[in-house]
Amino acid sequence: MASIYGNKLKLSIFGQSHSAGIGVTVDGLPAGFSIDTVRLEQFLARRAPGKSPLATPRREGDAVEFLCGLYNGATCGAPLTGIIRNTNTRSGDYANLADCPRPGHADYTAAVKWKGHQDPTGGGHFSGRLTAPLCIAGGIALQILEKQGITVGAHIARIETVTDTPFDGVHISPAELKAVAEKAFPVVNDSVAPAMEAAILAAKEAGDSVGGIIECAAVGLPVGIGDPMFDGLESRLAAMLFAVPAVKGVEFGAGFGCAAMRGSQCNDPYCIRDGAVCTTSNNNGGILGGISNGMPILVRAAFKPTPSIAVEQDSVSLSKMEEKKLTVHGRHDPCIVIRAVPVVEAAVALALLDALL
Amino acid sequence: MASIYGNKLKLSIFGQSHSAGIGVTVDGLPAGFSIDTVRLEQFLARRAPGKSPLATPRREGDAVEFLCGLYNGATCGAPLTGIIRNTNTRSGDYANLADCPRPGHADYTAAVKWKGHQDPTGGGHFSGRLTAPLCIAGGIALQILEKQGITVGAHIARIETVTDTPFDGVHISPAELKAVAEKAFPVVNDSVAPAMEAAILAAKEAGDSVGGIIECAAVGLPVGIGDPMFDGLESRLAAMLFAVPAVKGVEFGAGFGCAAMRGSQCNDPYCIRDGAVCTTSNNNGGILGGISNGMPILVRAAFKPTPSIAVEQDSVSLSKMEEKKLTVHGRHDPCIVIRAVPVVEAAVALALLDALL
Amino acid sequence: MASIYGNKLKLSIFGQSHSAGIGVTVDGLPAGFSIDTVRLEQFLARRAPGKSPLATPRREGDAVEFLCGLYNGATCGAPLTGIIRNTNTRSGDYANLADCPRPGHADYTAAVKWKGHQDPTGGGHFSGRLTAPLCIAGGIALQILEKQGITVGAHIARIETVTDTPFDGVHISPAELKAVAEKAFPVVNDSVAPAMEAAILAAKEAGDSVGGIIECAAVGLPVGIGDPMFDGLESRLAAMLFAVPAVKGVEFGAGFGCAAMRGSQCNDPYCIRDGAVCTTSNNNGGILGGISNGMPILVRAAFKPTPSIAVEQDSVSLSKMEEKKLTVHGRHDPCIVIRAVPVVEAAVALALLDALL
Amino acid sequence: MASIYGNKLKLSIFGQSHSAGIGVTVDGLPAGFSIDTVRLEQFLARRAPGKSPLATPRREGDAVEFLCGLYNGATCGAPLTGIIRNTNTRSGDYANLADCPRPGHADYTAAVKWKGHQDPTGGGHFSGRLTAPLCIAGGIALQILEKQGITVGAHIARIETVTDTPFDGVHISPAELKAVAEKAFPVVNDSVAPAMEAAILAAKEAGDSVGGIIECAAVGLPVGIGDPMFDGLESRLAAMLFAVPAVKGVEFGAGFGCAAMRGSQCNDPYCIRDGAVCTTSNNNGGILGGISNGMPILVRAAFKPTPSIAVEQDSVSLSKMEEKKLTVHGRHDPCIVIRAVPVVEAAVALALLDALL
Repeated sequence: MASIYGNKLKLSIFGQSHSAGIGVTVDGLPAGFSIDTVRLEQFLARRAPGKSPLATPRREGDAVEFLCGLYNGATCGAPLTGIIRNTNTRSGDYANLADCPRPGHADYTAAVKWKGHQDPTGGGHFSGRLTAPLCIAGGIALQILEKQGITVGAHIARIETVTDTPFDGVHISPAELKAVAEKAFPVVNDSVAPAMEAAILAAKEAGDSVGGIIECAAVGLPVGIGDPMFDGLESRLAAMLFAVPAVKGVEFGAGFGCAAMRGSQCNDPYCIRDGAVCTTSNNNGGILGGISNGMPILVRAAFKPTPSIAVEQDSVSLSKMEEKKLTVHGRHDPCIVIRAVPVVEAAVALALLDALL
Repeated sequence: MASIYGNKLKLSIFGQSHSAGIGVTVDGLPAGFSIDTVRLEQFLARRAPGKSPLATPRREGDAVEFLCGLYNGATCGAPLTGIIRNTNTRSGDYANLADCPRPGHADYTAAVKWKGHQDPTGGGHFSGRLTAPLCIAGGIALQILEKQGITVGAHIARIETVTDTPFDGVHISPAELKAVAEKAFPVVNDSVAPAMEAAILAAKEAGDSVGGIIECAAVGLPVGIGDPMFDGLESRLAAMLFAVPAVKGVEFGAGFGCAAMRGSQCNDPYCIRDGAVCTTSNNNGGILGGISNGMPILVRAAFKPTPSIAVEQDSVSLSKMEEKKLTVHGRHDPCIVIRAVPVVEAAVALALLDALL
Repeated sequence: MASIYGNKLKLSIFGQSHSAGIGVTVDGLPAGFSIDTVRLEQFLARRAPGKSPLATPRREGDAVEFLCGLYNGATCGAPLTGIIRNTNTRSGDYANLADCPRPGHADYTAAVKWKGHQDPTGGGHFSGRLTAPLCIAGGIALQILEKQGITVGAHIARIETVTDTPFDGVHISPAELKAVAEKAFPVVNDSVAPAMEAAILAAKEAGDSVGGIIECAAVGLPVGIGDPMFDGLESRLAAMLFAVPAVKGVEFGAGFGCAAMRGSQCNDPYCIRDGAVCTTSNNNGGILGGISNGMPILVRAAFKPTPSIAVEQDSVSLSKMEEKKLTVHGRHDPCIVIRAVPVVEAAVALALLDALL
Repeated sequence: MASIYGNKLKLSIFGQSHSAGIGVTVDGLPAGFSIDTVRLEQFLARRAPGKSPLATPRREGDAVEFLCGLYNGATCGAPLTGIIRNTNTRSGDYANLADCPRPGHADYTAAVKWKGHQDPTGGGHFSGRLTAPLCIAGGIALQILEKQGITVGAHIARIETVTDTPFDGVHISPAELKAVAEKAFPVVNDSVAPAMEAAILAAKEAGDSVGGIIECAAVGLPVGIGDPMFDGLESRLAAMLFAVPAVKGVEFGAGFGCAAMRGSQCNDPYCIRDGAVCTTSNNNGGILGGISNGMPILVRAAFKPTPSIAVEQDSVSLSKMEEKKLTVHGRHDPCIVIRAVPVVEAAVALALLDALL
């Protein structure tokens, strides 16, 4: 009941970190869309691990196999299912975790919820690996949106205490957005990259990890998309983004910054630009009453530091109900934020496409 | 498609600011629960306007009539519907707004979405008044949760630049939580109240408004509630909270603060307290992998300043497609945050009850 | 969780036979549709009791009040809620039924499901009276469909052993369909009416009741409406129709008759008529693979005899767990089928509109 | 939006007749259930083709691979996905059908709905082959139900004009039910089998096909399962059963037979048997007000004859919009009903398990 999302586009994500395979079914894609598989692979490669000292050395080789949903390379109306085989798994690394939960992970909550029957290896269904199928579906959504003139792109807005220049929520163009998102280290202001990388490496050397913030924009969404209340764009986007492991906060436009503003500052004044209704600021992140107002959609997601760290931590033995020290082995990202940039784009694209259909 | 929420508890909210009535239908409440109507009225009174110079002088007289769903004063299994009549409406105040949208409101987006057929009076279906039916349902949910040993309470964490002491996410007791929430001016540290009130009154005198942050906690939720991914507690709570007008950010536990932390700081270490698994910090806000871990649920929602302000603003004429100055008349809250405290409690209670059933 | 229906059009029905009121909320209606309230009242009058010796003498005076969802008489995009007050209730008639369930009614199943907290008066939420709000929503759906060139109409296909001529599933015109549906006694072949009426009156005199079949057609639905599998038109229509009290069977086109056919008889051959693809027979009732094929939609619903009868029946005392004779008093229809004709039209119209949006 | 079913148990079915694979994801299964894979394979074998002259010679070799959802052979709380590879496909047989639709199939409706982008080979997503993944999920559901004391079984109630003895809706025992369902030719009265087989073979020899009726019973379901209105057991079961290709009618208990009854005949009188409330007849098929009453659930589904027949039929060329004769080649069942018996059991089991969770 949990791993399914959407109104008109139904998304079903399945798999565990170390099961035979993982995948996604998307039901409701428009028929007749030819998927550019080369670009899709490039998109998935942005999320894939094993590329740099900033990320986990686990290599996934995320080759997608489409089981169905395509005919002659184009969507055919039927549900589309893409799967990825799990190879290169090292279950042994996790043998101990069913009894001694890792702080910050879902080990303990899954054990209680499923009464000890959960798959503890590699985080099971809660693994960050499950963002790969989200990216399969999201990568397709991005292509469909682009054909409709909608561009979605994200950047690293913050790593630990190092911050990037935010997107210009009023003037950002599709080309600029794409250029930033496709950088090897996606920041608006390249000069902040070294400090961010240094923060990550410092944490890595300390057997630790760091958190960060990703900012995502969508340009070109028509006015009037979304619904009031529980199906507002903010509710839909937030429900999707909080499904991404490690996200602990979501805000739109000025977000938490609105709290310190006066109405006269925060209200986005209307104007006419090139014959269209626009606003001269974008504190509302392109959304009013849950519905798009034609300005760029601006959303930020806060990521906690990867909970898997090498330093010894306080845990408990669930079987003995006593306190116990835990040292986690295995291969982990010192910072999930870089690889999460395409994941956020995928999540935003899927939520917007669902609202748009 | 929009104003319905929930999995096991289905919530349908209806009404416009100036329609004959507004209300809520809740389907799926457990049968046999006797509603304490006196306490429900007290709860609704916390949201009601017209009580102080800090709020709108509009008096609603929010008398709830239960059309159905009760038998001998207790829930009977059938859908429960509560309605409130709209009286004391002054539609004339809004005559102009269909053509000249108020910045920060949904006037423009609703006009485009519904092609000019929207109800523009008083914000129509987007009015803050629609939080009254949310509070009817939420007030009942709070009573049901309480009977199961779960206490939900909120406080004003911030008004403009004035901040309250946060809840103690590890040690807060049900009694403390309730005591704070039921204060006339609900803050943890009463000494910050005068500065908050001064900030509101200063804005009011300037024909302006201020934003703020509400923090909400839920104590007593069992371990194992919630589901992975899209039905995780964070996704459910966020989808609900972003449906509350003016909310622009939602975070759990340390939230955006996690971004600046290292894993060794952010991970909540496990310990055994009184024979139960606990954590010694609560940066995850009681939720891991979308599932409750037994610690207090901690969530914060950022509210933008009320967009209805008296000072002149830049808008446009939609019919003439030209720029135009707008001065909004009518009765408005200089700060919605105080009255939104029970709304946040209601929203959180409903999302948790839905997850719990 | 139960009294809500639909994908794009969300329908929430609430109320009990003897609660203060009953009603319906419809979310997702297209904005800007002006409801013809005179025609809506006429439609509701077809369902209303108290008009003839063939029906219950209970007079409902089903005056609908629209609480919200309209602006200047037209739908405004916000959820539409219509309520009807319950007057003329005689709860005393039902005092005994909580302990001694009426055979054929939901008295016993509701008592077990809701552990004795159900509203037993008049059948509570299971009362046929709840078809009145269905008709409010359905009456509006019929008007919206008609504006799109889609006509829905039904007739009494059978009362006990007396059968009417079926609709011509290939050639029936919108005008013919409407003419039949709006007859005081809606049959295709008027000469069967006296025998049907005689069957009803004979049952009434015996303190008994009779069942029947209603056939409904929809003409003008475009090709390609509906979805595969669980959202096929047959699944959607059946889920809706089985929600109508007393329906025990639903079939499309030749329905159960298909079982005795060969493929060469049952397959509807294609042809070209007036430049359009048609079929020369309509054994599939206008639906192939869950999707409309442009031919009239043909559906039949079997209604069991009204379970409330005057003759003594075998029941039990739930409190004493012993067998007991039961005589039901109160005012009941000897045959629900006549009044159910507009209910079936409403149900079909709502399911089709949901699929069409 | 279409190929997903359920409230608490979410079922997503994917695949086309000739795509790389087909499969099913089930989300919401209780954790810790050990699947008996031998019995599951036996169950799937009942549906598999290629076993007798009464069925299509296409051999599927329906070997299921579980991609995820299991840990040490038991359900682990995460979504369970089972896939089957498509081998032995002969796409060439279907080359012509995109332009010249087969009568009685979804070729034409799919072409219009998906604007020519549908997968026409082998019926695409509408193929009866998609009942294999339904049986994977249903076979698991049957095992879970059995552990809770609930037995589901079906038989061939009719082939063309030959009818079997119906189940005894009051007295049928789990053992009898299972014994019938597991027969090679599942009928209650074995003496009708030869006539049924003769009817099928006669049709086959004529290049034709025959329809039939399947009756299914579920014994042991507790009282109080199901919900009112749109989530009533009848609505849930019908929505599921009409998703099975070729089903054109669904009825419960006496079903369409109720139409010819009087209330005094049709009402099921209550009695006390072995200290429990029972009924002495079962015309309501174990369901009152959408909720189970403790008696066996009785449901019948009418199957139209396989639309794929060898005899020449009238069709059209969609590209030329002219009439055209069609002869369908390929391997087809002269009667789908025998192989559909486990499909109906699977469908019923899934709907009941969803209601039960």
